[in-house]
Amino acid sequence: MTLLRFVYLFLLISFSASAQKDYRLWLQYDKITNLQVTQEYKMGIKGIVSLGNSETSTISLRELESGLTNMLGNKIEIKSKIEGENNLIIGSQSSLSSDIQKNILSDFKRINNEGFIIKSISLKNKKQIVITGKNDVGVLYGVYNFLRLLQTNKSISNLNVIDSPKINLRVLNHWDNLDRTVERGYAGFSLWNWQKLPDFIDQRYIDYARANASVGINGTVLTNVNANALILTPQYLEKVEALANVFRPYGIKVYLTARFSAPIEIGGLKTADPKDAAVANWWKEKAKEIYKRIPDFGGFLVKANSEGQPGPQNYGRDHVDGANMLADAVAPFGGVIMWRAFVYSEHDANDRAKQAYAEFQPYDGKFKANVIVQVKNGAIDFQPREPFHPLFGAMPKTPIMMEFQVTQEYLGFSTHLVYLPKLFQEVLESDTYQKGKGSTVAKVVDGSLTNTKLTGIAGVSNIGNDLNWTGHPFAQANWYGFGRLAWNPYLDAEVIADEWLRCTFSNNKNFINPIKNMMIKSREAVINYMTPLGLHHIMDTGHHYGPGPWVSDLSRPEWNPTYYHKADKNGIGFDRSKTGTNATAQYATQVEKIFDNLETCPEQDLLWFHHVSWDYKLKNGQTLWSGMALKYQEGVNQVQEMQNSWNKAEKYIDAERFKEVQMLLQIQYKEAKWWRDACLLYFQQYSGKELPVGVEKPTETLEYFKSLKFPFAPGN
Amino acid sequence: MTLLRFVYLFLLISFSASAQKDYRLWLQYDKITNLQVTQEYKMGIKGIVSLGNSETSTISLRELESGLTNMLGNKIEIKSKIEGENNLIIGSQSSLSSDIQKNILSDFKRINNEGFIIKSISLKNKKQIVITGKNDVGVLYGVYNFLRLLQTNKSISNLNVIDSPKINLRVLNHWDNLDRTVERGYAGFSLWNWQKLPDFIDQRYIDYARANASVGINGTVLTNVNANALILTPQYLEKVEALANVFRPYGIKVYLTARFSAPIEIGGLKTADPKDAAVANWWKEKAKEIYKRIPDFGGFLVKANSEGQPGPQNYGRDHVDGANMLADAVAPFGGVIMWRAFVYSEHDANDRAKQAYAEFQPYDGKFKANVIVQVKNGAIDFQPREPFHPLFGAMPKTPIMMEFQVTQEYLGFSTHLVYLPKLFQEVLESDTYQKGKGSTVAKVVDGSLTNTKLTGIAGVSNIGNDLNWTGHPFAQANWYGFGRLAWNPYLDAEVIADEWLRCTFSNNKNFINPIKNMMIKSREAVINYMTPLGLHHIMDTGHHYGPGPWVSDLSRPEWNPTYYHKADKNGIGFDRSKTGTNATAQYATQVEKIFDNLETCPEQDLLWFHHVSWDYKLKNGQTLWSGMALKYQEGVNQVQEMQNSWNKAEKYIDAERFKEVQMLLQIQYKEAKWWRDACLLYFQQYSGKELPVGVEKPTETLEYFKSLKFPFAPGN
Repeated sequence: MTLLRFVYLFLLISFSASAQKDYRLWLQYDKITNLQVTQEYKMGIKGIVSLGNSETSTISLRELESGLTNMLGNKIEIKSKIEGENNLIIGSQSSLSSDIQKNILSDFKRINNEGFIIKSISLKNKKQIVITGKNDVGVLYGVYNFLRLLQTNKSISNLNVIDSPKINLRVLNHWDNLDRTVERGYAGFSLWNWQKLPDFIDQRYIDYARANASVGINGTVLTNVNANALILTPQYLEKVEALANVFRPYGIKVYLTARFSAPIEIGGLKTADPKDAAVANWWKEKAKEIYKRIPDFGGFLVKANSEGQPGPQNYGRDHVDGANMLADAVAPFGGVIMWRAFVYSEHDANDRAKQAYAEFQPYDGKFKANVIVQVKNGAIDFQPREPFHPLFGAMPKTPIMMEFQVTQEYLGFSTHLVYLPKLFQEVLESDTYQKGKGSTVAKVVDGSLTNTKLTGIAGVSNIGNDLNWTGHPFAQANWYGFGRLAWNPYLDAEVIADEWLRCTFSNNKNFINPIKNMMIKSREAVINYMTPLGLHHIMDTGHHYGPGPWVSDLSRPEWNPTYYHKADKNGIGFDRSKTGTNATAQYATQVEKIFDNLETCPEQDLLWFHHVSWDYKLKNGQTLWSGMALKYQEGVNQVQEMQNSWNKAEKYIDAERFKEVQMLLQIQYKEAKWWRDACLLYFQQYSGKELPVGVEKPTETLEYFKSLKFPFAPGN
Repeated sequence: MTLLRFVYLFLLISFSASAQKDYRLWLQYDKITNLQVTQEYKMGIKGIVSLGNSETSTISLRELESGLTNMLGNKIEIKSKIEGENNLIIGSQSSLSSDIQKNILSDFKRINNEGFIIKSISLKNKKQIVITGKNDVGVLYGVYNFLRLLQTNKSISNLNVIDSPKINLRVLNHWDNLDRTVERGYAGFSLWNWQKLPDFIDQRYIDYARANASVGINGTVLTNVNANALILTPQYLEKVEALANVFRPYGIKVYLTARFSAPIEIGGLKTADPKDAAVANWWKEKAKEIYKRIPDFGGFLVKANSEGQPGPQNYGRDHVDGANMLADAVAPFGGVIMWRAFVYSEHDANDRAKQAYAEFQPYDGKFKANVIVQVKNGAIDFQPREPFHPLFGAMPKTPIMMEFQVTQEYLGFSTHLVYLPKLFQEVLESDTYQKGKGSTVAKVVDGSLTNTKLTGIAGVSNIGNDLNWTGHPFAQANWYGFGRLAWNPYLDAEVIADEWLRCTFSNNKNFINPIKNMMIKSREAVINYMTPLGLHHIMDTGHHYGPGPWVSDLSRPEWNPTYYHKADKNGIGFDRSKTGTNATAQYATQVEKIFDNLETCPEQDLLWFHHVSWDYKLKNGQTLWSGMALKYQEGVNQVQEMQNSWNKAEKYIDAERFKEVQMLLQIQYKEAKWWRDACLLYFQQYSGKELPVGVEKPTETLEYFKSLKFPFAPGN
């Protein structure tokens, strides 16, 4: 209570200041405090000349105007033509005069349709800055990039930034239901207020579009993969159309999830068999109806024959039949089908990790050109750490898109600070060896490994209607980082953290350095206190909140944590090597060998691939039991270090967000200990060994931890 | 689409500006634009001296500091002692020096424990302003009142404001569920983030408390009357405690809803019989447990044996048995039981309107002293208009509290602009005649009619986690107005609207006058286009969104709209007169006579009390059918007038809120026409008459309106 009193006395001081800062995400546009930097910018930007006249051009201009005014503290003149020097000239290629174009003609060859050029040029002997691209959305991307240069206090004296996104489809997947609950959502409820659409355009729709455009996200799947067919009825399509109209000038296409049985549920047909002509025709007509409303509709995302969802297998057909039928429906309009490979059968409990590969790999080359198979980063389900999914690189004749989970279903909801770009980067950098050394997942995803034209990356959204959008102020960095890596999957997570911190909080290096360090380490911390050494899916069941390694009574074996850790008197871990389920054989030979061999298998994946005795010696000489226990303790200690780092940040940022994060870190610390104590007490039953020196004694019993119930945990 | 484009181009200009204004409610503290007024305030307020040192005092000081700084544009000095003249001296009675006290000693006799005094005094020949009260919460009320004087540009040159609340319990009822859905909530989801409580204190909790304190609301029932017993478990009580700690310094007590069967569900007992000693003891222990955590816990609100909720009747006991048992449990700690009289039996379909009176009136004088019976304003259920509930004034030996619905369950959700204080005032001014002429409902509620000490008023909250709190910017006025009328049930709705507009938008009379007029007329408009002439409960079923006069197939007769309007070839209306159900007999004789007689019954209540032929001549000479049709048309026209008024307001306020309201009024207009067309087409089947001249032709068929379905309407 003393802490609480302190907290709210602290917070009560300024009404809604926190709400405002939190709401503005990384687009704070705070006044720049470094005088030298301000001086350079004021000298370098004397006016803005906008050459376009589209809605997107207007957005670019207004964004520059508002950003510069706020950061520099004075208005920048908007000029109707280029006069004097040091103007910002913004416009697409075709709007540029020939004397400007000739300055940058060769640069246009280096960008793709969504790319941009920011360049200092000399025009009639006067220095100017041009922001351009092949179309107005490219210009908008350039504008956000330019603003970010200022937000991060970079020099603008001699600009030559030429950049294009490396992936075509950079989309958020909203698992949002029509009742506004969000499956696995921990930031409030859905942004989409279906009740008030189409006539009420919430300011948040616009601010959402701005935030996405600022990092290059160009698509949004509005609805849950566990889909409701009603979204495809005119009543809802009218609302979807309204959102599409809001998002279009920001370069964002709208997608929907297609419930495979929709022809029955809303079409009045007796079947949804993809080989049935009436069914195919129903989808063709439905696509026509949608495209009439939304000419640039992106297409459908489909979860079929997975976790109870209907699909082509209900009619004895396969995924190829289902996906291609839908592909034909949207192809005339340029739409795509994103078909998820997240499948596992209740009839095959041998090894869930093997099933997506086993089912989908043989389909390589059989999908229509506008189908892209969406594959989760790992073979199970968005765990704190998973080895990369064996399908990456294994279907060279098929577009494969990455599905990351930005919302922290298995990573502490929105109370744990976990910087996910570290996880994303680890996966993207993984070498599949499918075309020899250097065949990274990133090269699969951006199509460069197999010369694939249709490429994509999806992030399961962590966005809700909380004032701060993502529940945790630092979860904003995961949205931001997802967008940046979708644009360029070779970016470094640390560089992204640096950018984000500067845009969101402060450019003071005394703040940036320790807090960046905290972010970078945060992902390893969560692995340590939840699932060290390759453990996985031992979260409590259903809601996935907190530890539940003891759960063993669910109807499907592969829903039980005990299925995944297989702890017994002899040891712990899932043997996926040749002596076990042989899941390792799904990888390229070089990778298979590494994972298969206890000696070469990275210890971070040890219990993912091997059942190992409690006395097994780890590389540091500790026994597995001691090493695991110490890892759990290390995770707790790391959260404490995060708290220490954060407490020192107080003087550099606003009191409100400081307090928010402080409170959340306190929860994370409490829950990290809960994870440590619950898991170690449970596993100790099997190891029969004492906790090693250095591990704190649990303060509660195992029975206590097992008794905890969370009937209203969010997102379930 | 053209309109939409216009709208979002307009809105995109400034990121989140709208969100910020919307969020700040009536506590905008905008810079005062009238120079003369600013001059007076700057001269009159040279410094602030705060004499208290409680958390509440700190809040008072910070609020003044922030409000004055923002409104005047410069900082006001905080002084540690009184120096010079024109200081604001704030502190409770005991903190005032004797020379100050002697200036206002007699005033203290005129205020109650929550009252305040704002007074210009002369101290050592220097002019000062004192804001005081008997305790720090009184001072806080005074501070908000003082700030409101400035917000509304009133003179502060010779202050003498002495005011006290006339009602003890001024509480919001949140129908918030533990999964954060809100029954009848149309402003997003529950503010209470149970998942993150107790450790995370959302800034909104604090801002919610501020807003409530600023209008004098001093209690909040956190949970739905359709209650879940889990709220009474330690897991949740810890969270409730955290909220209570936040609200306490704002003078706000926390209450919970008590599920009557909780002793079974969470207590492990076999019964919840209020006469069972173990049950009574369980509640006593539960109360002790709660008060240990929350020493100023307010008590319980109970919905028992109503709409499927458990209650004492499940055990052959009555409401008195149930309420008194709970009252004994909380009495030692000063708690109260608010026991709802909203009951109607499925076994008695004769006239639902009669049942609460029939069941409760005989209990008069039988409840314990700390029980207050909570009665809805009308005998059915929060309709756009209902005659006052016959229980008001009919239980002189029992504390009776008013239950208003601030959320617009039956009044267009959060898309319709309806200024509810007009409705509240109409009810409060109604004369019950229970102690002769002048026995108004307000006098029942404030206890003055029967010299009742325990008094209360409840408002079913319209607050959710939307950025603007209430879904519609003008619904904020209903929260504000409820609070103001709870403080003083004799206030005029027009005066409240004036205050609210000035605090929320602008002091410009060219804005205030037409918009105030729009607000005042808005409530009659919604009656006209929904339920004119005493019609009621003809909303579509379940969600209550839109018209559904045709619904007649529900299991309980009194859930069907046809039960309420009883339209047939002969006419329309519910005969509650002597020739019908004789519900009129529940009123005092004078009132009974007025309602009973077709000649004297106010036409606004005509079809509430009488079944009237289609050819019945209204006072204006129109037939009932023509008059009703023209009323529906008038409602539509009134919304058009509201739109016209609002469109002229554009230049006086911020673009964002202007656009928001404009979009919402457009929805309201569309839905007003929907109501008109659907109801008239439906009733026309019975009247068999043409629409009179002046009523627009429906553009859709009755079958179309009947076909509309809203499976995900909010709040259901």
